[in-house]
Amino acid sequence: MTASTIGLDTPQVTARDKVQGRAMYAGDIKLPGMLHAKVLRSPYPHARIVQIDTRAARALPGVKLVLTGQDTPTRLWGTHRKEQRILATGVVRYCGEEVAAVVAVDEETARDALDLIRVDYEELPALLDAQLALAAGAPEIHAGTANIGHEMRIERGDVAAGFASAVHVYEATYTVHSQYPGYLEPMGTVAQMDGSGKLTVWTSTQSVFLARSRLAEALDRPLSSIRVVQAVTGGGFGAKIVEESNSLICALLASRLQRPVRLVNNRLEDFMGARSSVPMQVRLKMGVDAQGLIVAKDVHILAECGAYSGLAGDVMHVTAMRSDSMHRVQNVRSHAVLAYTHNPPRGSFRGFGGQQMQFPLNSHLTVLAGMLGIDPMEIHARNAIGAGEISVHGWKIGSTGLIDCLAQTRAAISWDAKRQRQPGHGSKRRGVGMAAAMHVSGNRTLGNWDGSTIVLKMSEDARVVLMTSECDMGQGANTMLSQICAHELGIPIAHISVATPDTDVSPYCLGSLASRVTIISGNAVMRAAREAKAKLLQMAADKLQAPLDALVYGDGVVSVKDAPERKATLAELSRLHIFRHGGQGLLVQTTYDAPTVMHDANYYGNVAPAHSFATQAVEVEVDTETGQVTVIDAFVSDDCGKALNPLAIHGQTQGAMAQAIGWTLYEELQIEGGRMMNGNFADYTMPTADSLPSLRTGLIESIDPNGPYGAKGASETAILPGAAAIANAVFDAVGVRINHLPITPEKILAGLRAQKTSGVQHA
Amino acid sequence: MTASTIGLDTPQVTARDKVQGRAMYAGDIKLPGMLHAKVLRSPYPHARIVQIDTRAARALPGVKLVLTGQDTPTRLWGTHRKEQRILATGVVRYCGEEVAAVVAVDEETARDALDLIRVDYEELPALLDAQLALAAGAPEIHAGTANIGHEMRIERGDVAAGFASAVHVYEATYTVHSQYPGYLEPMGTVAQMDGSGKLTVWTSTQSVFLARSRLAEALDRPLSSIRVVQAVTGGGFGAKIVEESNSLICALLASRLQRPVRLVNNRLEDFMGARSSVPMQVRLKMGVDAQGLIVAKDVHILAECGAYSGLAGDVMHVTAMRSDSMHRVQNVRSHAVLAYTHNPPRGSFRGFGGQQMQFPLNSHLTVLAGMLGIDPMEIHARNAIGAGEISVHGWKIGSTGLIDCLAQTRAAISWDAKRQRQPGHGSKRRGVGMAAAMHVSGNRTLGNWDGSTIVLKMSEDARVVLMTSECDMGQGANTMLSQICAHELGIPIAHISVATPDTDVSPYCLGSLASRVTIISGNAVMRAAREAKAKLLQMAADKLQAPLDALVYGDGVVSVKDAPERKATLAELSRLHIFRHGGQGLLVQTTYDAPTVMHDANYYGNVAPAHSFATQAVEVEVDTETGQVTVIDAFVSDDCGKALNPLAIHGQTQGAMAQAIGWTLYEELQIEGGRMMNGNFADYTMPTADSLPSLRTGLIESIDPNGPYGAKGASETAILPGAAAIANAVFDAVGVRINHLPITPEKILAGLRAQKTSGVQHA
Repeated sequence: MTASTIGLDTPQVTARDKVQGRAMYAGDIKLPGMLHAKVLRSPYPHARIVQIDTRAARALPGVKLVLTGQDTPTRLWGTHRKEQRILATGVVRYCGEEVAAVVAVDEETARDALDLIRVDYEELPALLDAQLALAAGAPEIHAGTANIGHEMRIERGDVAAGFASAVHVYEATYTVHSQYPGYLEPMGTVAQMDGSGKLTVWTSTQSVFLARSRLAEALDRPLSSIRVVQAVTGGGFGAKIVEESNSLICALLASRLQRPVRLVNNRLEDFMGARSSVPMQVRLKMGVDAQGLIVAKDVHILAECGAYSGLAGDVMHVTAMRSDSMHRVQNVRSHAVLAYTHNPPRGSFRGFGGQQMQFPLNSHLTVLAGMLGIDPMEIHARNAIGAGEISVHGWKIGSTGLIDCLAQTRAAISWDAKRQRQPGHGSKRRGVGMAAAMHVSGNRTLGNWDGSTIVLKMSEDARVVLMTSECDMGQGANTMLSQICAHELGIPIAHISVATPDTDVSPYCLGSLASRVTIISGNAVMRAAREAKAKLLQMAADKLQAPLDALVYGDGVVSVKDAPERKATLAELSRLHIFRHGGQGLLVQTTYDAPTVMHDANYYGNVAPAHSFATQAVEVEVDTETGQVTVIDAFVSDDCGKALNPLAIHGQTQGAMAQAIGWTLYEELQIEGGRMMNGNFADYTMPTADSLPSLRTGLIESIDPNGPYGAKGASETAILPGAAAIANAVFDAVGVRINHLPITPEKILAGLRAQKTSGVQHA
Repeated sequence: MTASTIGLDTPQVTARDKVQGRAMYAGDIKLPGMLHAKVLRSPYPHARIVQIDTRAARALPGVKLVLTGQDTPTRLWGTHRKEQRILATGVVRYCGEEVAAVVAVDEETARDALDLIRVDYEELPALLDAQLALAAGAPEIHAGTANIGHEMRIERGDVAAGFASAVHVYEATYTVHSQYPGYLEPMGTVAQMDGSGKLTVWTSTQSVFLARSRLAEALDRPLSSIRVVQAVTGGGFGAKIVEESNSLICALLASRLQRPVRLVNNRLEDFMGARSSVPMQVRLKMGVDAQGLIVAKDVHILAECGAYSGLAGDVMHVTAMRSDSMHRVQNVRSHAVLAYTHNPPRGSFRGFGGQQMQFPLNSHLTVLAGMLGIDPMEIHARNAIGAGEISVHGWKIGSTGLIDCLAQTRAAISWDAKRQRQPGHGSKRRGVGMAAAMHVSGNRTLGNWDGSTIVLKMSEDARVVLMTSECDMGQGANTMLSQICAHELGIPIAHISVATPDTDVSPYCLGSLASRVTIISGNAVMRAAREAKAKLLQMAADKLQAPLDALVYGDGVVSVKDAPERKATLAELSRLHIFRHGGQGLLVQTTYDAPTVMHDANYYGNVAPAHSFATQAVEVEVDTETGQVTVIDAFVSDDCGKALNPLAIHGQTQGAMAQAIGWTLYEELQIEGGRMMNGNFADYTMPTADSLPSLRTGLIESIDPNGPYGAKGASETAILPGAAAIANAVFDAVGVRINHLPITPEKILAGLRAQKTSGVQHA
């Protein structure tokens, strides 16, 4: 039999193009007559645009077009709230907001022209703090909003009774900060109009169809007059879903000029143009009974979306409730408010609001475990929801590997031995900490559908092209689809290719978000391949004049069980599928729509077909003299259902761990007076390889009933527990509890000083 | 109701891109790192390649690769006979044959490098005449062939008895020469390898799937490792089906270099590289009874394919038998031989062998009509096969407009009045002539299938993308498909676009040849649109809670008959088709396979679902002093079934008329000693607008039972009668019968001199 790669380490099918430098990122595209664009951004967080003089810029030789807000469609765009024009008009609401765009024969000329645009601003007072923005009498950033971008309240069970029954109640406030997505490929777009009025947009995106919808809205054009083709995408991490302006500006310019235009962010522009994650303040109050079971939970969230809300409300929605479903807790209350400020807009980010709550929740659980004298691993295990249960929000937990993840992590990090260590006496103290998390695989809330359509096309040589519009942005979607198809058809994975997502020709899909692709499109491709195989078998039955159940399928051949000399190759059968009366090329279309429901008005309902879990433990070393925290060991156990491609899952889990470590210890967007001070990789210190420990990862295959072969979303969960695990380990090492990220040496030293002042020894 | 364009003059949907200069022909494509190729061709019609020294060429700065025949796959390619490598190896067989290819940083450097390649040839005797090539003892151009590329014999009825019953038997030999296709866009290709080993080839082609098969064969690569994308194609006329070497060479170079390569023929290269039409000598003997009915027909054809056979055997097959099916003739015999020579290879050309026989046949019929004293129009009408009849070769004539075409032409040209004119006395004499012809619409002989699959994809705004791999090469396929789809769905034609044919993602189709696209893919798109409409109606029935038969569909809305306020727009319905439980994007796949059969071993069988007819009459003026023939009026009546787009049909018919006039009077490939002497548009005199009369055209809508709305292939038939109509008109004008094309002044003057010598006055 042709070897299946399901469950085996499988190099990404997209890898060769990338390592050989052949992959065509948006910035690599060349079109005849292509021009280059650059964008002028606001230097003020809040100002009135008094006047823009573009004459000198337009007069610069080589400049083809200069647009300002006045030239943009008046229709407002936005994910939920329609609040933004493609270029700022009348007023700028954050420092970095796009004010004008220039197109010229080359990037240098466009950049030079930016300097010639004179914008008269009348600087206005800026609201740069969420609490101040929500204070009574604060001027409204968007009229009629009271500076509230979104607000939600959930209450289930009897929270007061729950707290009354608690033996320990702990309340604390946590601050989680904003993280820049830090993909290696900045946002880039090339756009071109054709003579029939169709605007083709090649762009770096996680969803071509969502990109198309948004372009149609922002450009105020009919949906189908736009064609979005995914350029090879060098990382997305949630920021390339529907919030960036790069594609909108580029498309607008191309439509106005009727010539191809290329707009690629440089790194600073990307820092200013990309939506970093949503910063929040979370006040969490939890009560536990004597066994450590959570009996009540009360959450207050103040989130800040910055100048425009985008997906930040959805992110906050996740923060407010998702982690509740990890546990059997029945009494929960959340109140969450999203505030507008004049800071840069924030939005979707890998984990999508999960980390903003898992940091408080897991910090809390370790504290409460300490109060009870229970091991933190144990308190997680006792509270863990089980497979087959329905959570407080109506989520059906089809599978969970949480208990197994805990055990695997415990062993891997030598938890028990390290927990029992005596504190050292030198300046360098070690400690261990852990955290657990859950994530969805898919999410019906994007519309009453969470489906994926696959078109499977078999050539006359029995090789396959898969058409999908789920986007591979580096995470391995194309590899996963190829693996499943190869497995089902019994052909080598090299005989499968995945066509580029293209709204004109690819089937409708929602795109790569909410860890939905493996479970949703994995199921779709499994069904498509099975249907194709059934067609081949029927062809064989007709050709070999044998009943279907007498046929043996394998190794690229169908033969008759008792007469193996009667046989046909798949290639022969796929040719015969065309070349006969009434024949046609073998082309199968199948759709999988998740067996979920939209939540009700009270946010109740099973929105996801499966849920992934992960646990992380870290060992840190804290230098009590410098305050430096070093992660010296880290292990994540990722419950991914069936691990279709362990290599990819381990790799993605390691990436998630690194990104969590960066968020917790190193990365900090320095926005001073609304201005980004460190929009580059020298000053925004993402962890490099030498600042990371060996990132160790384990898999738990919980086998989900809805997943293809039991698979569900992998590794997005793995970004969620990192911050709390580190904070808990720091506390274990030096007794300093840091609730406000990032965990900087200054905060450690301040904590250590406070310890001395109060005389408290660390636990 | 949204206005349907079926039957209305409809500008081509591809026109704007072309007239605005935005259409991306292969030569316009730019890829990062793209290199440029040029080809060295043999200066000899027959020579042994003793040695090729490429060192100096390779040493030229900027040169990236030089390939010779030794470097090409050893597998031979060819349509039927496998007889050619991508570059000549060991021996060259015609002057112009591709010997080496150079890739460099730009075209100029590549061209310069050609001059540095030293090829030592040992010139060998060349067979430049078909009869000499077939003579006993002639050296074989391809071993084991006796220089016969193809041979066929057909005999039906009793030919001897037929001749015995004839009142007149006439026999003559005709010569038809080779015509260069003369499309405005020379052949061009860009090819690129990706990291996974897939070779993408953008090329000017009439069939992406046939191109892919041939590339796979010639490059000796798996079929699916090649992706062919149709570049905008600026005319094909049969020469861009499967015989050119441009795409093969370019693809080979790109696969070797692993970098994008562009190879675009200049005009001389295209003259040498393209297959011009197949020259033939036709000896025709026909007998008629007293009523003018053809009672027997005996045909001997000697065709010349040149150095490689390609599709020339298929062309000759058509010449040998197709025109038989115009008539009720029952006794026919054909013997046809295709000879190899050392002339450039010839092949497929608009009309595909039809004109090679219609010239003899129609010349003959006018002669025989004259013998019988019957009007030539009348002899055609008396012999014409009728709708519902089965021809001598088993062809089912579902519809024929021949009788109506004759009447329309007769009236349009004022045939009767002009036939009765007395000959003038000055040096300029006028005459009229006519001819009739038939052509197929589709042809099953390409494989036991003559189908087309359409994938129809409706967006959430109820606009449509059609996926097909039938290629629009200027003839209007995309417009026809859009018209039918718009008509069936009741939406504006502007709401439909046709995706670029692309073997990776487009459904399998055979391509644009044999006038098959309107009838085959027209039926497919009609069915696809009806299926999509049925799905929309079902959505509406569900949404509006009304039975299907209570729904009214129109103007982009479905409403309830008796409650018009209960309604849904198509856009709402197409959105609902996705966003519901179990939903999916509206994507329909339908296939139409013609209700035809493969001919049997004796060439008997109904291979085409429909047949088109055309008649032409011309008035010429012959200058008896200079021998110059001027067409002063020309009218073609084209039986196209239902005329879906009269504007396009009139335009294409006019183009066919112009090409036929060019072939008959002006165009002549001057090949001397195997060398092309006039491979440019200055010396190869295609008719310009001022050398053509007003080309008048009429339509006959015979409504074919197999056609979509009765439509069948349009206007390819229109190229067939021109030569005979002119020859007959010349005879009518000056009594000179020219049987050897082209009709040059020299031949006219020679004929006039012969008249004087023999004392014969013209009729």
